[in-house]
Order: sequence, then structure tokens, then C-alpha cells
Amino acid sequence: MRHFILSLALSLFATGSAWAQTLKSPDGNLVLDFHLSGTETPVYSLDYKGKPIIKESKMGFVLHPDFQFNQDFEIVDTKFAESDTTWETVWGQNKEIRDNHKEMFVALRQKKTGWLLNIRFRLFDDGLGFRYEFPVQKELRHFIIMQENTEFSLAGDHKAFWIPADYDSNEYPVTTSRLSEVAGLKDAVLKEPLAAQAPPKELAVQTPLMMKTDEGLYVNIHEAALVDYPAMCLNLDDKTFRMSAHLTPDRNGFRGFIQTGTTSPWRTVVVSDDARDILASNLILNLNEPCKIEDTSWIKPTKYVGVWWEYFIGTNSSWAYTDNQDIIIGKTDYTTLKPNGHHGANTAHVKEYIDFAAKHGFDAVLVEGWNEGWEDNWAFGKERIYSFTKAYPDFDVKELNRYAASKGIKIIMHHETTSSVADYERQLQDAFRFMKDNGYDAVKTGYVGKMIPRSEHHDGQWMVNHYNYVAETAAHYRIMVNSHEAVRPTGMCRTYPNWIAQESARGTEFESFNGITPDHTTILPFTRLMGGPMDYTPGIFEGDLSTYGGSKNNKLSSTLTKQLALYVTMYSPLQMAADLYQNYEKHLDAFQFIKDVAVDWDHTYILEAEPGDYITIARKAKGKNEWYIGGITDENAREAVIDLSFLPAGKKYQATIYADGKKADWRTNPKDYVISTKKVSSKTVLKQRLAPSGGVAISIKEL
Amino acid sequence: MRHFILSLALSLFATGSAWAQTLKSPDGNLVLDFHLSGTETPVYSLDYKGKPIIKESKMGFVLHPDFQFNQDFEIVDTKFAESDTTWETVWGQNKEIRDNHKEMFVALRQKKTGWLLNIRFRLFDDGLGFRYEFPVQKELRHFIIMQENTEFSLAGDHKAFWIPADYDSNEYPVTTSRLSEVAGLKDAVLKEPLAAQAPPKELAVQTPLMMKTDEGLYVNIHEAALVDYPAMCLNLDDKTFRMSAHLTPDRNGFRGFIQTGTTSPWRTVVVSDDARDILASNLILNLNEPCKIEDTSWIKPTKYVGVWWEYFIGTNSSWAYTDNQDIIIGKTDYTTLKPNGHHGANTAHVKEYIDFAAKHGFDAVLVEGWNEGWEDNWAFGKERIYSFTKAYPDFDVKELNRYAASKGIKIIMHHETTSSVADYERQLQDAFRFMKDNGYDAVKTGYVGKMIPRSEHHDGQWMVNHYNYVAETAAHYRIMVNSHEAVRPTGMCRTYPNWIAQESARGTEFESFNGITPDHTTILPFTRLMGGPMDYTPGIFEGDLSTYGGSKNNKLSSTLTKQLALYVTMYSPLQMAADLYQNYEKHLDAFQFIKDVAVDWDHTYILEAEPGDYITIARKAKGKNEWYIGGITDENAREAVIDLSFLPAGKKYQATIYADGKKADWRTNPKDYVISTKKVSSKTVLKQRLAPSGGVAISIKEL
Repeated sequence: MRHFILSLALSLFATGSAWAQTLKSPDGNLVLDFHLSGTETPVYSLDYKGKPIIKESKMGFVLHPDFQFNQDFEIVDTKFAESDTTWETVWGQNKEIRDNHKEMFVALRQKKTGWLLNIRFRLFDDGLGFRYEFPVQKELRHFIIMQENTEFSLAGDHKAFWIPADYDSNEYPVTTSRLSEVAGLKDAVLKEPLAAQAPPKELAVQTPLMMKTDEGLYVNIHEAALVDYPAMCLNLDDKTFRMSAHLTPDRNGFRGFIQTGTTSPWRTVVVSDDARDILASNLILNLNEPCKIEDTSWIKPTKYVGVWWEYFIGTNSSWAYTDNQDIIIGKTDYTTLKPNGHHGANTAHVKEYIDFAAKHGFDAVLVEGWNEGWEDNWAFGKERIYSFTKAYPDFDVKELNRYAASKGIKIIMHHETTSSVADYERQLQDAFRFMKDNGYDAVKTGYVGKMIPRSEHHDGQWMVNHYNYVAETAAHYRIMVNSHEAVRPTGMCRTYPNWIAQESARGTEFESFNGITPDHTTILPFTRLMGGPMDYTPGIFEGDLSTYGGSKNNKLSSTLTKQLALYVTMYSPLQMAADLYQNYEKHLDAFQFIKDVAVDWDHTYILEAEPGDYITIARKAKGKNEWYIGGITDENAREAVIDLSFLPAGKKYQATIYADGKKADWRTNPKDYVISTKKVSSKTVLKQRLAPSGGVAISIKEL
Repeated sequence: MRHFILSLALSLFATGSAWAQTLKSPDGNLVLDFHLSGTETPVYSLDYKGKPIIKESKMGFVLHPDFQFNQDFEIVDTKFAESDTTWETVWGQNKEIRDNHKEMFVALRQKKTGWLLNIRFRLFDDGLGFRYEFPVQKELRHFIIMQENTEFSLAGDHKAFWIPADYDSNEYPVTTSRLSEVAGLKDAVLKEPLAAQAPPKELAVQTPLMMKTDEGLYVNIHEAALVDYPAMCLNLDDKTFRMSAHLTPDRNGFRGFIQTGTTSPWRTVVVSDDARDILASNLILNLNEPCKIEDTSWIKPTKYVGVWWEYFIGTNSSWAYTDNQDIIIGKTDYTTLKPNGHHGANTAHVKEYIDFAAKHGFDAVLVEGWNEGWEDNWAFGKERIYSFTKAYPDFDVKELNRYAASKGIKIIMHHETTSSVADYERQLQDAFRFMKDNGYDAVKTGYVGKMIPRSEHHDGQWMVNHYNYVAETAAHYRIMVNSHEAVRPTGMCRTYPNWIAQESARGTEFESFNGITPDHTTILPFTRLMGGPMDYTPGIFEGDLSTYGGSKNNKLSSTLTKQLALYVTMYSPLQMAADLYQNYEKHLDAFQFIKDVAVDWDHTYILEAEPGDYITIARKAKGKNEWYIGGITDENAREAVIDLSFLPAGKKYQATIYADGKKADWRTNPKDYVISTKKVSSKTVLKQRLAPSGGVAISIKEL
């Protein structure tokens, strides 16, 4: 159901400057003001329960070469509307999502040029979304954005959970500091060695940006529905705390090639005085377009294992089949080369994983390193690196397809591009056909390193279009996509639910490089996950990485129990059990939680949350009377208070509790865990001690 | 047959600097010297009949970031060889080509780094080719070329036929001047408005560069076998007349991403004291790799008409189907749009051309403007412009395929990319499949405008790889390619003879823009055509372009007879009769020559030639006892002396002579022509007057 109230079409020649419009959220807590300032620049502000969240902030653009499309406007029309609807997810944290918002649409005309620009605001109870719309018009058809002027004038020197702006990476560790401290801290963070780095000169941070005010308000800035437009980071004026949009440019300095008849992404500000509301917010999904795939029956949340972690921890397993770095892709005949003897993706080894997956009820096995080209893929200057249709001689595509199918297991395809993306697009159709011919229905894509085309960055418009093109093309072939090192997500998984997960942040592989801090996973749901699910690949049981000898970092950032809890706190319809299968065989009792935990949900209950400190979440498995709870903490031990009142009343349930042992500590004793069972009801409140960087995982079934 | 003489493997530690090697051409006229200079830099020089052509000239590279890979070398090996073979062309000016050369191979080692660099020289009777070879070696696998240092130190201030260096265009008018005058003249030439222009800051000119010395020697510098490397233009020091390689960079300044195990293109210097030898040279073809296509039976020299010229002359015919510039490709449903009523590529109009082609014995009809996206294709900032698989609503692909096939005519596909090349590659496989599904076996590609990827230029390594990739992929689909606005050719049509022609120079369309000078076609065979055939699209009968009202230039640069002669003087296996068919119907007697003239040849005889002044060529039709002669002149009238001694002796022949009429003059009376017949033999010497910018065309058949 959808109710529109259209009102107040202003006269065409109304002078907007002296005139302001306000819009209130359905619950009245959020109030948006919009008017034209003295220079007839569009400005907006946002209050929450009477307190300023965004002070007066400018809007508009600078167009190529240096045209000010941010002033000299008049308001030619204003329309108000409201909508309260509910839509069903293909998969998600909730089966249904309510979209209840009020809308204000403002049509602007630049007086001197006559050019038109529209702005659409939507206010939800949990925040604001607004976007620019570029209407079709006679005098303006194509233009280049040199700068988007959108400001977010913050009310104070908030505490922020930030990573530095970077056009090519979202993999920095998160720093917690006041905004005024960012400048002093960011250079140290930028020293983090990553495969591709392009931080802008300006003081700027990445979105989603999570902040907390001194008054205890939580504010999150991001964007929704990033289509044919560059990703936005945020410039920071650390004297006034005015932030402003910083669009990812191409290497020529152009930030967006726009044709009228299109829109910008939505700029989003999620606000609450309860941190749990931030995690529960569906604002970004609501601002995305509905699903464009008609039949979604083939899209399936997936739990998987794979030939992966062994490449990171120094076990001598290699992606490459040979040690010959002089291969030339398309010319070298691999069958004539000497294998290096420690290639991970060999048929026998993959069968071990298929056997393990089948035995323990997993859906799929990921295999990296199956295809020609890994020998010198570090040579980023080189464009033609991989074949996406030719397997290494020791990876028998047909036989593995047959074997996996006989065990009811899917193999997940891997397309590492090393960011040679024009070449990936060149091969894309054939690569997808190859997948369908060989039984694959899901692909993990990868974008490590510097971009080719060499004019582009990971987060610029060209690459945004690429990621969306891959998702759309994959949908055509009924293929699910899990993209790594791609631009941070903005809720596009609503429109293309086959884009089932992304990485786009510092994930588990960093445990083996430069490390992950204990608070990392208490922050990610407030930052990276605001845009969509993350393939974080938890489940590392062997926390002492020195076991293998070759890992740069030797200590996992969490207890084993916290690794279990991540399957609930880090929402994703795609979950990996990332450790070597031999390590699971040593702890089959704890492994039982990973086997049991659902990957799709009817309802989600955010029980406790404070960014950087702790998160406790309960979820009801989709279509089942089963509930799973995950609680995690940062470096500090704590007591989680787990109120089970979300359970249907009047029934008895059996809870299996996977808790940190008494001596558990991520630094000294990560594998100390205790498993117990308990009868519970909707009246039960569990109090569970979490060790330093510990966790608790609970499965609940109806008795 | 191939004879190798291996000789003189030098000791590994020979110091090369005090030591020089010479190589002589088979006839002994050309002498090459190679040695290491004082800084142990490789240097070479070239003499012709005792006169210096290239004085001592340096070789080598600067590698990223600023490493000197051009000094500190020692010679570790030298090998000599010779070869005298004959190979058969798939199509060409001659059925067979002799490759008679002597070779010197020099293996160099940089002493400090131990890095290896090889140079291979080949001396033919008509010139020199040499290339760098980057052998596989342990310490050097991938590198970036910042500069190629190859010099061509000329012996004097030669007369040159040049266009300014430009990374994005070869369409400038040719200027004739001394080398010392280039600097003073080039700025005026660069004012020529072209769709994409990127001239370097340095004083530089494009290759093929034709020169004439004061002593009457002809020297032509170009390159052969341009593969995975940027195209070369030539820096000019106009004091010393030292030229040096100037590789086309990408927009980041990188000139070549190289993996060892590959080579540079050949640098070529064609030399003679007779201008006719330059046109007769097969040196560049000989330096290219043999044909890589096994079955070439589907590659067919083609004579065609098409829906093309009408777009240039202001007849109101348009490529676009609508006047709606707000279409968004892939989203807009064209069937809902109002057609503009003057779209050229409509089914009925194409059938007129099919009828005309069938009636007059042509092979094919080119149709431009058949596909979705032309409405705003001038918007170069936009990436997704065309669909290559969706026809406009008024172009009935199936019906036209049926109709053309019923008349024995092929339709030539058109893929204008407007240089949105990543998008073309994205669609390429599907576009070629669409062609094969609908009866097409040839495509004209176009690269108007600025390049996307925005890091690239038309003549850089990335685009060179693109053109080669298209040719190779097309071969896989059995499709012939005629590329317009691509990099200047380097003889690659030997390797991929399905790459049947290119434009890559100022062609006939410029007659309707800013004009073509009367000497243009007397120069092109010495410059642009050195690399391969050109789709020049001659045959314009209506020289008064003001007839149509909309052309910017109103006067064709030649007489009608000269247009006929171009079918012989401008060699191509792909020849268009470019004028409106109605204009041919007005001059069916003259049109007979275009109908008769062959497009493939057993033998070619260069009868007269002086760059910038005149050319007279005779050719024997392939497999037939028919000969065709074309003679052209510049703005000056002249008498062509046409010695028919190439005809087999002792037989009688009928010559049909298409000559300029007495009042013919390109400026005042271009359509004055006289057709006569004459009995001739091998003893006949015809003397034919050519009008200012006039010509003569002759067909000869055995009686």
C-alpha cells in the first residue's frame, strides 16, 4: 500500500531564498529544513529530538571545467509525499522490511542558465536520505562533475570510527578518535602496506562513517544505490567539523560523466540515541531500487569451506601451478611446464574439501588458484594475466564437477582479476558460459592491486559501473557474486540479490598479515556492514598462527568462541568456515555451532550494541523455530546480558551455549571454551561472561 | 628454401667498444655498421652506395622510473645469417613476394646489472629493419619503458612529406617542406580541427616519414609488426637532423609494459635512388610474421558501395534514427520514439543499394547508422554509447540478410565505437556472434573521438593490443576487418589477412570537411600506404559538392578521371565506389572502369613515381589476362609516359583509356573526360596528358 499526498506546487517564479520548507519523520523526531541561502545556494539541516545533527549545509556541484552549479537557483516546484509499505527480502536479516517515510521533492532552476536540478529528500524514523536528480532538459544533456558540494555540517567534535579516504582501498584498520584527532593520526594509518593505495591529499575519511556525539547520539553517514556515479568519501574540516562530499575522481581528475535523466546516489544520515537502532536500520536498503531479477529461486544463501586459508598462513600451498614466472598467458602451454609440487587447487586436495563439506552439511567449496596465470600475477603492470576459462593441468574441471555433484556440493568459482578489469570484461561472457557449462552457480571475484584501465580507481565511476555490470550480467546467467576488494556496498544487493556478499573491508585474511585489532568486529557492523553483507570468512579455530611458520602475524585477534559468535554478529547470507578442515576435526564439538547456524533469517533482534565495545545479536532462522545468538566484545572482558524475550512466549527451549572458558583470553588462551546446554524461555535473561576479545554463541531450539 | 650461415660467436667477455661489425645487403649497396660507443652504448649507421643515410645513431631504453638501459653494455654474442625465400600472399599487389635478406644478431649484456638485451638487424636490397628482443632472464621479467632511445641521425636537411606527431590522429593534411621548416609550419597544421587530437609538446612527426635528400635519394622511416607495443613517432632535432623514437605514452606517461620473452616492432628504413623502389618495397611485409590463419578461403578482396557518402554532404540523411538526444542505451525503447524521417540506414534505402550493387557486379554494401545509439554519440564523455546487437526499428536485419543473399550481395557490418573501446570489447564476442547469425562476414570498425579507457590514446600500447585483438578474434569468427581511425598500419595484414584494410589517414570524407589538397594522393602511397592497404573510398563523380548544399567544402580535389585512377594507385583489396549511386547512373560510361577494375593482383609495375608530384602504376589482375593502369598528378598538368613493356610480348591487346578532357581542371571542370579505345602491345608507349589534379585510367584486355 502506498499513499501519496501531493501538495503545494509553488508558482513557477517564486523566489526561494526567503522561504524555507520543513519535513518531519513519521515519528516526528527528525526534522529537515531546506531553503536557498543568500547566494541562492540550496541548503539543508537536520535535527533529531530538537538537537542539531546536521547544521546548515550547502548542496550543488561544480561542473567541468569550473562552472558553479551550486548557486543562483530559484525553487520552481515543491512536492510532498508519504509512503508506508512493506517488502519481502530475497534473503536478509529480516524476512520483511517496512519502508515508512515522508518525502519532499524540490525542483530548482538556475536563473542565469535556466538549467534544472531536482533534489529529493526522504525522512524515515531512523534517518535521512536525499539525492540529486538530473532531469531531461533541452540545454543540458551531458556534463562532467568536477566536484559535488554536498556538505554535512556536524554539530561538534564527535567521536568517530574511521578509516582514511582512499580511492583504491577499504582495507585499513579502523581508528577510533575524535574528528579533531584524525589529522594527527591518519599518516600512521596510511603507512599500512596494502596492494593498492591512493589516498587523496585532502583530509578525508571513508564512508560509512560512524560517529557518536558527546550527548550520546549516534550518527552514521553513507550513501545508497551507487549507480553510474563515483563512490563518495568525506572531506573533513577539523576546525568547524563541516564535512563535504569527496567523489572518487579518475586519474584525469574527472569525478562523474553524467547524462541527464539520471540521479545521484542517495546521501544517507542514520540517527538515533540508541546504538542498536543503527544496526537495525533498513534505511539504505529502503532507498535502493526493488529487485530487478524476476525469478530469484536460484539465489541461495550459502555456507562454505574452501581451499583458501592455507594460502595465507605459510603452509607452502600456492595459487600458482608452477614456479615459472615467464609464462605468457594464452601462449604458454602449461602441460609442458614443471609443476611446483605444492599447488593448492589440485583435484585430490579439492576432493578432500568436497568430502569434508558433504560430511558436515555445507553447501559449497571455494577453490582459489584453479586457473592459468597466477605465476606472475603480482606484475601489476601487465594487463593480460589470467585465463578465466582454462584450468591448470592438475585441476580436472569435469571430474570435480561430477564428484561434487555426486555429493550434493557446489564448487564456487574464483575470478581474481588482480584489477586487470578491462581484460576481465573482455572475457566475462565466456567466463560465465564456462561456469554454466561446468556446474558453477557462484563466483568470488577479486580486485587486488592497481587498476587497468590505468585511468581508473577501484571506487570511481568506471569501476562502480563495472561491479554493477558484473552483478547484472551474472544475474542473466543465474550466477551469484561475492566481490572482494570492490567498492564498499550501498545496498545494491536489494536490486541484485545475486550480489550475495562483498568484502570491501579488512577481513580475516589480515589476521595473517598485519593483524586485526580486538575491537574490529565490534565496529564493522556500524561501518562497512551498513551497506550490505560482508564475506568476512570467520571460523579460525587455530589462533596460534605460528603453528604454520610462515604467517607474518602470529596471533589471532579473538578467542575461538568469538569466532563462532561472528557467524551471527557479522551478518551475511554467505558464510565461510575459513580454517583448515583438519583444525575443525580437532574441535568437532565447537564446530557443531558453525554446522548448525543459519545463513538466512526471519527476524533479527539487536540485543546490545556499542560501537567499538560490544555487540549481541539474536536471529530467528528462516522458516524454522531455531534461534542463534552471537555476542562479542573488544579487548575488554564483559558480561553480556542476553534477554530472550524475543522468543515466543509460553514455550520451552533448549539452548546450547558456546562460551569462553574461565582462562580464555585472545592473547594467551584463545582455545579455552565451554559448551553447555540449558532450558530457557522467553522470560530467561542469560548473563554470560566474555573473555578479553571473547564471545558467546548460542543456538536455541524448541523442545 | 632457407640458408643459414652461423658465424663468429664472440667470447663472452669480448669488449665491444673497440670493435665494430658490418653487414651488407644482398646486392652490396647497403652497408650497416654496429658497435658500442665510448659509453658502451649500442650505435648503428647505414650507408647506401657509399653515401651516409643514417649516421651514427644510439640505441637503447630508459626504463621506469629512470633507469638507463642504453649504456654500459658488452657484446656477448654475434650471429650472422642470410635468407632468400619466397612466400605467397593471401591477397596483395603481388601474388608472390621474395624475402632476400642478410641478418646480424647481437646479444648484449649490461655489465652492472647483468641484464640482457638483443638486437636483430636485417638488411634487404631496399632497406634495413632492426628490432630489440627482450630475452627471458632471471633478473628481469617485467618492466615499463619510459623512453626508447633509438636514433635516426639523418645526413642532411632533407625534403620531407610529414604530418605532425599526434597520439590520437593520423588525419592531418600532409605538408611538404625541409626538415628545418617543420617547426615553423606545424602549428598551423595542428589548428586543423579533428575529432581527437593529442600532439606531444616535442617537435615530432608521424611515421611513415617519406624524405628526399638533395642528392636525390629517397628514405622512408616506419616500423613493422607493431605488437604489444606503442606506435612510434619521431622526435626531430632540426639543427642536427637527428631524429629519435617517440613512443606513444598512456596518460600516465608510461610507454610500454613489457614482459621478457617478447620483442619490439621492427624499425624500418627503406632506401633507394629511384622513388619507384619505395612503392615497390615489400620490406615491411617481409618483417611481419607469416599468416596465422590456417584456412584463408573465406578472405575475399571486395568491391563495395554503401550508405555512407550521403552522411557527409548535407543531404539531410542521418546516422541517427531519431532526433531525441536523451536516449540511454540499453534502457530506451526505440520503438516508442518518433523517427526523424531522414534516417539513412532504413530497409528500403538499403535495398536500393543492394539492387544497384547486384546490377553492377559489386560484392557488398556497407551500411552505417544501422544500430542503436547514434543520437548523442558526439557526447564523448559518455561511455556506453552503442548497442552492437540491436538494430534501429526501421532496419530489418533478417529481411535485409534474406534480400541481399537472394541477390548475391554481402552487407558489411559497421561498428563505430566513438572510441568507447572498453565497451566495444565488452560487447565484442556477442557482436561477432550477431554478425555470423545474420549473414555478415566483414565489419568496418571506427574509432572517432577521445578514447575510453581515459588513460589511453589511439596509438598507445593498450589500443595497439585492442586492434590486434579485434583482428585475431574476428579471424576466429571468419570475419574481415576494415578499421577506421585506428593506429597507422605496420604490415600486420600479412599475419592477419582478414584485417583487409584500414583508414588511418586523411581519406575521402575530408573532401566534404576541410578539403584535401591535389598532391595528397601522390604522397599517401609513400607514407600511409607503406604499412598496408587503405580504405580511401574513392570514386566521387560529383565534384561540385555545393550541389547538396550542406558540405563545408564545395570542391573535390580532383578530376573525375583521377578518381578512377585512384583504384589502381591507392592499393587496397577493399575498394569502395563511394559516391551516391544516382551519380554513377549519370556517368555509366566512366563508371565502367570502377566495375571492371580488379581488387586483387598477380603483379604490380610501378611505372612512374615522384612523391608529391605524380604516380603511374600498372597491375595485372589476379588469375586473369587483364591489366589496369592508374596515373595521377598533383595540381600541375603533366604528360604521363606509360611504357607497356610489362605486357607479355607478341600479343595484341585492347586498351580502354579514360582520360581527362581537354578542358578538364579540378577547379573549373572536373567532369570533362574522354573515353577511347586503342590496340596496344608490349612495345607500346602511351603518352597521356593529365589535367591539373587529373588522372588517367586504363583497362587492358587480351584480344
